[in-house]
Order: sequence, then structure tokens, then C-alpha cells
Amino acid sequence: MRASQHTTTGHLSTNGERLWSRLEAMAKIGGTPKGGCNRQALTPEDAAGRELFMDWCRKAGCEIRIDEIGNIFARRPGRSNALPAVITGSHLDTQPTGGKYDGVYGVLAGLEVLETLNDNSIQTEHPLEVVVWTNEEGCRFNVAMMGSAVWAGAMDLSAAYALTDQAGKTVRDELERIGHKGDIPARATAIKAAFEAHIEQGPMLEAADRMIGVVSGVQHMSRHEIIIEGQEAHAGPTPMAMRKDPVMALAEFLPGLYQLASDQGQHSRMTFGIIETSPGSNNTVPGRLKMTVDIRHPDREAYDTLLGMTYTRVKEACENYGLAYEMHCFWEAHGVEFDPACIESVRNAVEVCGFSAMEMVSGAGHDACNVAAVVPTSMIFIPCEGGLSHNEAEATAPAHVTAGATVLLHAMLEQAEFSG
Amino acid sequence: MRASQHTTTGHLSTNGERLWSRLEAMAKIGGTPKGGCNRQALTPEDAAGRELFMDWCRKAGCEIRIDEIGNIFARRPGRSNALPAVITGSHLDTQPTGGKYDGVYGVLAGLEVLETLNDNSIQTEHPLEVVVWTNEEGCRFNVAMMGSAVWAGAMDLSAAYALTDQAGKTVRDELERIGHKGDIPARATAIKAAFEAHIEQGPMLEAADRMIGVVSGVQHMSRHEIIIEGQEAHAGPTPMAMRKDPVMALAEFLPGLYQLASDQGQHSRMTFGIIETSPGSNNTVPGRLKMTVDIRHPDREAYDTLLGMTYTRVKEACENYGLAYEMHCFWEAHGVEFDPACIESVRNAVEVCGFSAMEMVSGAGHDACNVAAVVPTSMIFIPCEGGLSHNEAEATAPAHVTAGATVLLHAMLEQAEFSG
Repeated sequence: MRASQHTTTGHLSTNGERLWSRLEAMAKIGGTPKGGCNRQALTPEDAAGRELFMDWCRKAGCEIRIDEIGNIFARRPGRSNALPAVITGSHLDTQPTGGKYDGVYGVLAGLEVLETLNDNSIQTEHPLEVVVWTNEEGCRFNVAMMGSAVWAGAMDLSAAYALTDQAGKTVRDELERIGHKGDIPARATAIKAAFEAHIEQGPMLEAADRMIGVVSGVQHMSRHEIIIEGQEAHAGPTPMAMRKDPVMALAEFLPGLYQLASDQGQHSRMTFGIIETSPGSNNTVPGRLKMTVDIRHPDREAYDTLLGMTYTRVKEACENYGLAYEMHCFWEAHGVEFDPACIESVRNAVEVCGFSAMEMVSGAGHDACNVAAVVPTSMIFIPCEGGLSHNEAEATAPAHVTAGATVLLHAMLEQAEFSG
Repeated sequence: MRASQHTTTGHLSTNGERLWSRLEAMAKIGGTPKGGCNRQALTPEDAAGRELFMDWCRKAGCEIRIDEIGNIFARRPGRSNALPAVITGSHLDTQPTGGKYDGVYGVLAGLEVLETLNDNSIQTEHPLEVVVWTNEEGCRFNVAMMGSAVWAGAMDLSAAYALTDQAGKTVRDELERIGHKGDIPARATAIKAAFEAHIEQGPMLEAADRMIGVVSGVQHMSRHEIIIEGQEAHAGPTPMAMRKDPVMALAEFLPGLYQLASDQGQHSRMTFGIIETSPGSNNTVPGRLKMTVDIRHPDREAYDTLLGMTYTRVKEACENYGLAYEMHCFWEAHGVEFDPACIESVRNAVEVCGFSAMEMVSGAGHDACNVAAVVPTSMIFIPCEGGLSHNEAEATAPAHVTAGATVLLHAMLEQAEFSG
């Protein structure tokens, strides 16, 4: 890559073929018969994946550090190494029946950026780093985005160490067992900018036929349980007006909640994943209705409106029918608005490269959410087939893989003050 | 009881105390720790209950016949035994966690009528009979109102014989084992009139503070299963407009169906006993919604409207959201309009006795539905606590028990041409 290419069409080395073959190689570690991956955090498979990555990094001339919670930092020096680094990364661990791209893509795209710069003898003012965050999935140890949370100060190191898997093994012991409990503090240092490339895990890019998602933030999101107490009654003799039928309350608030989501615009999400009557007899008025609602919106005010109005509508409907009910939030993660300058770098990169793109918000959480709390951050999405993720059938195309890493290259170069 | 009492205040012998104590004695057979009964059809408990009943009947001087399907007929001769009998009866079998009154009350109230006549040396023109219909509950052998269905010609004897319980035992074998497979044909003979006294199994009499329900008929009723196919999707990234969310269809048709029931008046019944999403994950758009709807109405036209419009509304909503669905009826029982003359006899009896009463339709099926197809028939309801039935806590008051049997006495006397 020559300097002139940056401002025109800049390519990855081998047009992304090395990156694709590394994705394939990594996928073999913990590979499943159905073509997915089972490489859960701090298992022997995760350890093998991390070692393979570090091996590639060493061969690329990177200096490697591992912090106390196992986050791996592979550094390519800049011209001025006192300057804060520009970082990128994601995770290598997967769900038990996970795919080949979720997380892994962001890590290996970062490595490809560093190697492409090596191949073209490009120097940057700021050093560059590729990061592997420990235990993003939160399936074996039940806290998602754990490594980045500790690093960003959102979770205590001791609390992370104490997490146990189903066999009672702790994060601390498992880090030590695989030799990835590092010495350097798991604490954010001065960083100029951070990027994370990721498959979209949703259908929007594919539906809009775009190569790149310029991600401006992550939705606010929360999950709530609603339990409405009715009174069991025979479906025949009991007149409708004398019933305590929780489904009547459901019928009253359900259309209103979908309308509410619609009123808050196209970024609203309202999902009733569980609806369950009991005792569940076809000729008995249900004595109880249990359901969940998952509410998301990228805009804080709209999110708060969705939340508040949902509680109000459920309350009104249950009171209308004289039904006792209980509603509570069992999980909430506030959203993130990414850094305008980092978003702009991605936008510029897309323009330079000439890829079709769209601005979007992430519907799922990522390490970048934690990182964004302490470092200017943004994300780059590429399409995945049918929006499928957390699934062994997770798939994307080589052209997308190459496009995303190329955008990452240019965005990082802009932030790292590439001077040609 | 003297003749003059019939037209004024006519009492049961012992003011109903004998009837009450017999209900208590019968409840001990298959009695459950929670005060209910488990006396399922053709079990040793059912056999013991039937023997106890026949023993009481013999002591009351009745002639007993058992037909091929085990229906028991206890006859008190009239003055003209060539005349068709006036009959009454119900069933002695119960649900596995059934109560002390469902069915039993109608049988023992009938016996009390006969004995009260004995005690007062009253003769009727027509003979009187008390009937125990076999397997009304349909829980052990899965056809409800079986004995009366065979007798009325609604079910083939051979089909009833072939029904099996979960252990594979047939009705025929079990009838033989308990010695209640009689010799006389299970076929309706000439009958002048039939009555069935029963607890209401609903809350209306209690709510209206009335002693007697004058039952004019039984609702048309059917049960339907609806399965709507959606597409599983992540609750976050997938925009609402791109979802195949079966709950959206539910939100569209559910309020309309309740409205539909309301539009068809106070006798409509619409019950969504089962609603179940799958896979049932709080952050996944359900891939499938399964539900049932139980629809009832005493008026045939209104019932047909409810049925037709329900299918239409579900279809429209699913088509609006591009969702594949399947809806079918898995059970239907057409309603019954009882005989005007029999209803009038109950009305007259209520007036003579001075009990508070209301006209009503039955929301549940009874042996009287089968009987009504071949014999002029009506029913008498008494209140039960909280409308509770098919439940060990089923309860009613001695005053109600006495009132119902007294009304039965007068109604039967009118039909049996009591001449004092």
C-alpha cells in the first residue's frame, strides 16, 4: 500500500484473503459438526484460540501485554510512542453453539490492519493496538462483556475473579490455569480512539443491500416481567363480566404497547418473548398470565417514554379489570452514543473506499459499549446472512469481511495521524 | 306430606336432612384428604357408590334395572304402569379431584323425591324413575356423558365399550368386572318427561342471591386451536417492521374477539385458556404462538356469528402481518333448548314453593343434553360456593340442597299427574 492509496482506494494486503483464511483457521478451534464454534471463555479451546492469535501477532512484530483479567493487547509502535494508542478489537470467545464471526472478526480485522501497514511499510504517528477482550459472551461465566467492563472500571476485578461456571470453577483459577492472568493492571490507560468491527447480528444491512454500517451508538435496553393474577373459572357458566381474566388486560394493553413503539419511531423495539397462561387448560379462564417485554431505543428520552408508558398502560389495564399484577425490570443496560469524531472517521473511510453504507444503531451490546465510557469509540458493522447470530449457521461473505477491515484500516489511519 | 301441601308449601321428608346425610355418606366413598371425591367411572370406588345407591333404592322399595352400558334405573311404580315414566337423575362418577355434589346431588335428590312420596303415601299416575348415568365425567374414559349418549342413540354401544383408560382397560371389561354390565338394551324407551337437578357450577345464582336456577337450555360450545408461525429474531437488531411476530397478530385480533363476545350479549362466552409463545426466550421474537379459544352461546345464530367472525378476525390479522397460521376446531357440542312444558313445570314448582329463582342457560354440558334429544327434558340448578366445581373444595348449603330437591319433587309430581 502506497501513501497515495490511502486517499483513494487503499487495499488490504492480499485483498483480504489472508484475513479470510485466518477466520477459517480460528474457526477450526472448537469447531462444531454444524460448522459453528464452541469456544467458551477460558476453556482449553479459548486458550488455543488466544495462543494462535498471539502467535500471529508475534510474527507480525507486535509487542504483547496481558492484563490481570486476561485482556490481550498487541501493539504496533508508532512514530511517537508517548502518544496515546489507537485501538481496535473484540473477542475470541463464543457461545456454546456460536458462529465463526461474532467477535473473532473484529479481532482478526484489527490484526489484518496492522499487517497491511507492515506489508506496505506505513508508519503512523500514534501506536496502534489490537485488543482481545476476555469473556464477552457471558455464557460460561454469567457476566457479558466482562473483560472490557473491568478494564473500563464498570466492574470490580475481584467480582470478575469470583465468577464461577456451572462446575464451580472461578474466572481467576481458569485464567491462571490457561496462563493468561497477566501482570499489568486491568485499567484503561490513555487511548486516543477505539474502533470495533463486528458482524451486524441483525438483518438491516442485508435488507438495505449495504456493505457497511456506520454505527452511531447502542440502544438503551431493558427486560421486564409482568405477572397478572386472575381467577380460574369454568369457561362455560362464568359470565364474561364476572371473570377475573388476565387475558382481558392483555387484550387491552398489547395493541397500545405496539402503538407506543410505533409512535417512538423506527428505532423502537418492543418484544414479547414469553407469554404463558396457567394452568393452561382450554376450558378454564387462566388464573395467571406471565409474560416478558424487552424494550429498546437508542434515544434516551424515547426509551424513557417507552418504559414509563409501558408501565402505565399495564397498570391501567389491570386496574380496569380489577386484576392484581406485578411488573418489574429484571435487566437493564443503558445505551451508548459513540464519539462524533470516531463516527466521522468511519464515515470518511467509507467515502474514501466508495462502499455502500448506512448509519445505524446497534441493537445488541458489545465490548465497545464499555470502552466508550472511557475512550472515544465507534463501531463498524458488516452484513451477516439473514441477520443470524449466536448460531452455528452464522455466515457472511468474503467481500463484506474485506470491506469492513478496509474501512477499519482507513478509520484507524485517520485517527493515528497517518502522514504518508 | 299431605295432598294439600303440594299446592301450597310441600316439604321433603326430614326437611332434607336425610338427603344431606346421604350426600355426606356417598362422599366418603373415594373421599380425598381435602374433602373432595375421587370416584372415577367404573373404578372400585364408583362400584361401591353405585352399590350404596342401589341398596338405598331397594330399601325404598324400588325395582332396579341396569342396561348394557351400566345405566341404573330405580323405579317407583305409578298407578298406571303402562304410562311412560317421569325420570330424573344424573351421575355418581367424579373427576380425580372432584367434589361432593357434581352429579351426586341430582341422583340423591331424585331418590329423596321417591322416598318423600313413600313417606307420605303419595301415588302418581305415571311411574317415577331415578337414573344413574354411567361415566358422565369422561376423565378416566375420555368421552364425557357416555352412558346417556349411548342411551339416547348419540353414541354406538360398541364404541363406548371399546373406550380404554390409560392402563388399556376397556369400558366393557370394567363394566363386567364390577358386575354392572346389565342385560336390558341401552336404548331410550318411552318417557314422559326428564329432569336433572345439579349444582350450577358457575357463580350466577350466588351473585344474584337466588336459590333456584330455572334452566332453559345449554350453550352451544366449541374449542379451537390457533397456531401462528412467526420467525425467531433477536429482540435488538431486528426492526419492528421487518419482524414476523405472531404476538402482533394476537394484539390485533384479541381485543376484537372480546368485543365480538360483548356484541353478542351477556350470554356470550369467549375463553383463551392457553396462550403460549415458543421458544419462550425473553430477548427473542417468538417463532410460534399457540393458543386455544373456547366459544359458547345459547343462541344458535349468535353462536354461529361468534364462530365465523372469530375465524375471520384471526385470518385477517395473520394476513395483515404476513404470518402463516392454522386454526381448527377440536371439539364442538351443539346446545340444547329444553322442553317448554318441562321448564314450565320447574317454574310452577318454584312459584308454589316460594323460592327466589332466575331463568338461566347452562354453561356446561350435562347428561340432560343427551336425554333432551329424545325426551322432553329440563334442569334445575342450585347455587354452589364461588361457582367452584371440578374441585375438591366444591360446596353448597343444606338449604340449597333442600330447595332444589323440593322443586324437583313438585316438578315431577306435576308431570306425573299427581291427583292427590
